[in-house]
Amino acid sequence: MSERKQTIIFKNKPYILSAYSIAGKKESEGPMSDWFDYCISDDTYGESTWEKSESKMLKTAMGEVVMRAGLNHDEVGAMLSGDLLNQLMSSSFMARDMHIPFLGMYGACSTMTESLMLGSVLVDGKYSDNVIVGASSHYCTAERQFRMPLEHGNQRPPSAQWTATAAGAMLVSQCSQPYTEMKTIDGDVVNCRNVRVESGTIGKIIDAGIKDANQMGSAMAPAAIDTILNHLDDTGRAISYYDVVLTGDLGFTGRDIVRDLLADAGVNKADIENVYDDCGTMIYDPQQDVHNGGSGCGCSASLFSGYVYKKMRKGEIRHALIISTGALLSTISPFQGESIPGIAHAISLESE
Amino acid sequence: MSERKQTIIFKNKPYILSAYSIAGKKESEGPMSDWFDYCISDDTYGESTWEKSESKMLKTAMGEVVMRAGLNHDEVGAMLSGDLLNQLMSSSFMARDMHIPFLGMYGACSTMTESLMLGSVLVDGKYSDNVIVGASSHYCTAERQFRMPLEHGNQRPPSAQWTATAAGAMLVSQCSQPYTEMKTIDGDVVNCRNVRVESGTIGKIIDAGIKDANQMGSAMAPAAIDTILNHLDDTGRAISYYDVVLTGDLGFTGRDIVRDLLADAGVNKADIENVYDDCGTMIYDPQQDVHNGGSGCGCSASLFSGYVYKKMRKGEIRHALIISTGALLSTISPFQGESIPGIAHAISLESE
Repeated sequence: MSERKQTIIFKNKPYILSAYSIAGKKESEGPMSDWFDYCISDDTYGESTWEKSESKMLKTAMGEVVMRAGLNHDEVGAMLSGDLLNQLMSSSFMARDMHIPFLGMYGACSTMTESLMLGSVLVDGKYSDNVIVGASSHYCTAERQFRMPLEHGNQRPPSAQWTATAAGAMLVSQCSQPYTEMKTIDGDVVNCRNVRVESGTIGKIIDAGIKDANQMGSAMAPAAIDTILNHLDDTGRAISYYDVVLTGDLGFTGRDIVRDLLADAGVNKADIENVYDDCGTMIYDPQQDVHNGGSGCGCSASLFSGYVYKKMRKGEIRHALIISTGALLSTISPFQGESIPGIAHAISLESE
Repeated sequence: MSERKQTIIFKNKPYILSAYSIAGKKESEGPMSDWFDYCISDDTYGESTWEKSESKMLKTAMGEVVMRAGLNHDEVGAMLSGDLLNQLMSSSFMARDMHIPFLGMYGACSTMTESLMLGSVLVDGKYSDNVIVGASSHYCTAERQFRMPLEHGNQRPPSAQWTATAAGAMLVSQCSQPYTEMKTIDGDVVNCRNVRVESGTIGKIIDAGIKDANQMGSAMAPAAIDTILNHLDDTGRAISYYDVVLTGDLGFTGRDIVRDLLADAGVNKADIENVYDDCGTMIYDPQQDVHNGGSGCGCSASLFSGYVYKKMRKGEIRHALIISTGALLSTISPFQGESIPGIAHAISLESE
């Protein structure tokens, strides 16, 4: 590892005042169902094109976090978001209707933590009081753009991952919220803890030379490992400092690679088993026939904004390291013989 | 205008230690020729695909600013860049080879000022000592992706703009440089002034309802006006505070709209004439048959990093407001009957 620190320590630890996750039909039938704030029963979400459906999901999430934080739109200084669609179609059309200064992000499936990183910088540095960040993906828009139109009925290889129909958003603020009551998944009423952004590690692009677009997990795993190791090195922490370390959407194969290579790098094997998992392996049940797990910006965005955020509000998770991972291939680059560049950005969250 | 301030005032006024602009053959034959740092004589730039040519241009620019600032790659905390290609192919492949933490931006042709905005935030807030920012475009990659393969020989309507084959990059730093000598365009040797980032205005998406992808200037002009007026309002400045106010790439039609609508908004007409122009109208000679002017991320990126930066180093421009403008349409959205969302981000630069 180089001497450069890749990790930003947030002096003021911005607050995540609210978060919102929304998921499609298949995702709502999976094991994470209860953690989503809203499950759509029909993936069109009442729209005439898949692109508009995805954009509406993101708009719902971004709008809800503003409302839940008790703010007006004109109290939000900026919004940062992205998606997988060419020219960020979902985000652009969402942002058109919100009238909030907009900064478009592209990091493929790493977009949620990229947006959260730069949003937290804007708030921590007092450039803005409140910022909203988010990301989305939709199975039907992604399949058409990156692979084949659904109508083709193509077979998917066992290593392929399933792009999640989901979106997530968070509102990052300089102000804390008075502790409020919150209903848990079991129906109990508990006091909510504050969730704060403690630090973030900006990832480098790592290209392991993989050229198969159906091996995304393997292509992204080296970037995830590089970012995790740099984060631990920069902060002087052991992985056991965290209650959970969650990568974005490496799927089963990618998760196994990360486990092995972290152990190879000297990280305690039992600790890895205890704290590390991957959103792509969590969002679907193996019975749901998605092969290697979930993927897409919305996979980690919805799990971080739903599962992780709610567990942190309840105090069931005190320290979390969340790492969205992206495969920066284009639809043209594989035809030109290029391998797949991977990237991963990590954010450390605290519940207090 | 809402009460929300869209403008960030940089407390520490980060320094732009170095800048680099690179342009293609046609651009090098235009009136800006002498201001580019490097002119490529063959638009392939020695590569086997147009995408690789564009990526190499951006890599040259990003690498040169690090070298000119006398830094090593591991002294650069982050790089922020983007381009017009799907999945930011030029930037991703550039970043793969540089081993610097990478944040991908997408703002269509507004990318240069978006990157400079967030890069300046990272430096001004002391999250990073040095950051590099940049953007690129290439006529041949953009035509293939957004319009028709060149081999079709399609006719272009008079309102169409010509995507510039060009790239620009800047190195933003916490440290100033000792004044150094610099050779001017006329061969004189002068002392260089420091160029600093004073403030920045994050733009909102404005959609004027235009659906014709050959009317980009008209689609983006309302966003440019909104950002300029918000900037002047937030800072309490008249437009005459600036020696130059340069929009990104509105072309002739868009520039005329901005002139008219700024005057309608009460801005002094003579002042507008004195200070305002558009990169899209400056980069080509009317004889070069580009119809409505230049466009593409590289158009404003190369002129800001070449023409504007060098004039500021010489002290010929003391205050500049640069505004890259983006049309956030996708290749799919016009087929779905959508209009074109426009965006513009402004950066105020000072020469001291």
